[in-house]
Amino acid sequence: MNPPAFVDLLNTLREKRPLVQCITNYVAMNWAANVMLAAGASPAMVHAVDEAAEFASISDALTINIGTLSADWLTGMLSAVDAANKKGIPWVLDPVAHFATSFRRDAVEQLLQRKPTVIRGNASEIIALAGMQSRGRGVDSGDSVALAETAATMVAKRWGSVVAVTGATDFVSDGVAGARITGGSSWMPQVTATGCALTCVIGAFAGAAATGAFAATISALSYFAAAGEKAHVLADGPGSFSWRFLDALASDDFEDRGERVEFVIP
Amino acid sequence: MNPPAFVDLLNTLREKRPLVQCITNYVAMNWAANVMLAAGASPAMVHAVDEAAEFASISDALTINIGTLSADWLTGMLSAVDAANKKGIPWVLDPVAHFATSFRRDAVEQLLQRKPTVIRGNASEIIALAGMQSRGRGVDSGDSVALAETAATMVAKRWGSVVAVTGATDFVSDGVAGARITGGSSWMPQVTATGCALTCVIGAFAGAAATGAFAATISALSYFAAAGEKAHVLADGPGSFSWRFLDALASDDFEDRGERVEFVIP
Amino acid sequence: MNPPAFVDLLNTLREKRPLVQCITNYVAMNWAANVMLAAGASPAMVHAVDEAAEFASISDALTINIGTLSADWLTGMLSAVDAANKKGIPWVLDPVAHFATSFRRDAVEQLLQRKPTVIRGNASEIIALAGMQSRGRGVDSGDSVALAETAATMVAKRWGSVVAVTGATDFVSDGVAGARITGGSSWMPQVTATGCALTCVIGAFAGAAATGAFAATISALSYFAAAGEKAHVLADGPGSFSWRFLDALASDDFEDRGERVEFVIP
Repeated sequence: MNPPAFVDLLNTLREKRPLVQCITNYVAMNWAANVMLAAGASPAMVHAVDEAAEFASISDALTINIGTLSADWLTGMLSAVDAANKKGIPWVLDPVAHFATSFRRDAVEQLLQRKPTVIRGNASEIIALAGMQSRGRGVDSGDSVALAETAATMVAKRWGSVVAVTGATDFVSDGVAGARITGGSSWMPQVTATGCALTCVIGAFAGAAATGAFAATISALSYFAAAGEKAHVLADGPGSFSWRFLDALASDDFEDRGERVEFVIP
Repeated sequence: MNPPAFVDLLNTLREKRPLVQCITNYVAMNWAANVMLAAGASPAMVHAVDEAAEFASISDALTINIGTLSADWLTGMLSAVDAANKKGIPWVLDPVAHFATSFRRDAVEQLLQRKPTVIRGNASEIIALAGMQSRGRGVDSGDSVALAETAATMVAKRWGSVVAVTGATDFVSDGVAGARITGGSSWMPQVTATGCALTCVIGAFAGAAATGAFAATISALSYFAAAGEKAHVLADGPGSFSWRFLDALASDDFEDRGERVEFVIP
Repeated sequence: MNPPAFVDLLNTLREKRPLVQCITNYVAMNWAANVMLAAGASPAMVHAVDEAAEFASISDALTINIGTLSADWLTGMLSAVDAANKKGIPWVLDPVAHFATSFRRDAVEQLLQRKPTVIRGNASEIIALAGMQSRGRGVDSGDSVALAETAATMVAKRWGSVVAVTGATDFVSDGVAGARITGGSSWMPQVTATGCALTCVIGAFAGAAATGAFAATISALSYFAAAGEKAHVLADGPGSFSWRFLDALASDDFEDRGERVEFVIP
């Protein structure tokens, strides 16, 4: 199996300009919207129970992130997911620090029962989803991505989802095949909500692509990694990395570099 | 009629430093506050029903944006608008994607009944407000500003408001006279919530100016367009445009360039 | 008494990487999270009543900011504070514009009764907390920091808290001793929520340090002032200052410059 050419899928995304309903956290909203615009998608942050389902029915994809969860937001999330499933559009779950409180654990359980198309988290989050012991406490990952590969495969099989573990090296599993993606920048963990923004971008690729969620997720991660590398070279810290990353995401002179992706059967 | 000198009104704004209550969406809040500080206004994001009306009564202007609407926020918005009308301060409505769901349509109807001083939207939003057919689906505009001029005049007459349609070329109508404003940057639509921030800036000009809302709105749009041009020259993408735009907005060496504004009777 | 070496405490913070629960306002969230990551802390924005107390019980510090207060958020704040007090971790109160509405006054009264470890505000806010006459109207300070020194000492004595008044010159009081901190940048008031972010950073220093809250607060303010100076030199406006400030906060080549801190018995 060859890696998908992310530049091809990025061009498809930019032609289709998918409308992606992003129910994400307060910290991520502005950053995720700017990342999505740079990618070429049309993001819409619509969360209220009064309209979340109706809006999902006109969207091309949906993303759900529990970073700053509250009870009324959860109600909106569940109704949007049900509408997305009814319409048959892909939806992506970002189970931020789901192990930290019982409120989050219960919320993620309800979301998982609705079979996310893709799940994206850091190593701690995916390891905990697999029922394994995690070292994570808050929202930052305390575990290495490598250790999470087994967990990702387990979670993918359990829920029938594509699972992406992101970190210094990313790993994507569809339950059978796996792919490692290298690249990015050491500044990325210092820019808050960059993982949350990536969740939205996975939604955009999945909403635009006819290739299936596994290839769309690998493409989204490769695109992020490539843009991160471009920005890294000229950055002096997290502040300068941040705007250079947006400039890189918005550019169109990417070298595809298929060797960034390594396929594995874990 | 000559165009108002926006530099004069900008100086007035910076002397008076109007307190503007901005009830805007989660995506826009940080960006809009920074834009307002750069302009020289004093923004306050105060939305809760427990205090929205009381705060409006100490403010110089109010702006309402329904980008991430929910039922409890709508209650706060309506109470703030009633207090603003009672006090006689200008208020600006930004009906983000009001055509997308019935919840938004109903909310905007309630807000319009309270007679906004100014309405600002993109072409799709203003065309839909006029009851004409829009191509917009989400929050980004699918229609050209030129096509929206007729709609803007209709909406202005219908509600007794000044109406601003913003895009590559802006158009402002008071129901009789109209003005086109050119300038800005092609990066502006790539920086999320820049239109939402402009809505707040219109509130600041209207709250500071004794010239009436039509001239204040034209001034605000001219100022935004001039700062956008300044920032555009040195920007390499949406990330670098974003901070250069803030620097430009905060500067005081604007060339007034009245030819940016063209008055028309549409 | 010598000033604490902020570089030493910064190193401690970066080694311990304290988990700080920041219940802050919508405007501040993204910026405060990025500032905290640059400092080396692990921020978590967790506010909902369903989990705020549980999360406080796994945190190293808690910060409370009422910038965009609503009734349900206040409930979450109070439960988090009670959990923090029970666990014995430091918590910091940022009483944004508490004098503006009766809703805010009542909320701050309830929070003060729970004895904040540290209170941080601008001059208007601290003067009003002392029951003195303030010139402040909205969220920006209308009073000089110098005038607030007496108020800070009064408030510190009244509630048994360390009180920090920040502005062009900062002042910290524990009710007996006081310290003035100079430095920073004239662009700081133009970057929205920079004071709110500083409140979170005080929480991080207090959560990491074994030195007590007075020294931790002085260190946090010295660190902020030093980073502001570094960023100021190369900035051309609030936009360029903003990302350069993040780069400076994330760096590790600080000159300690104890002369930035002057101890006084007011």
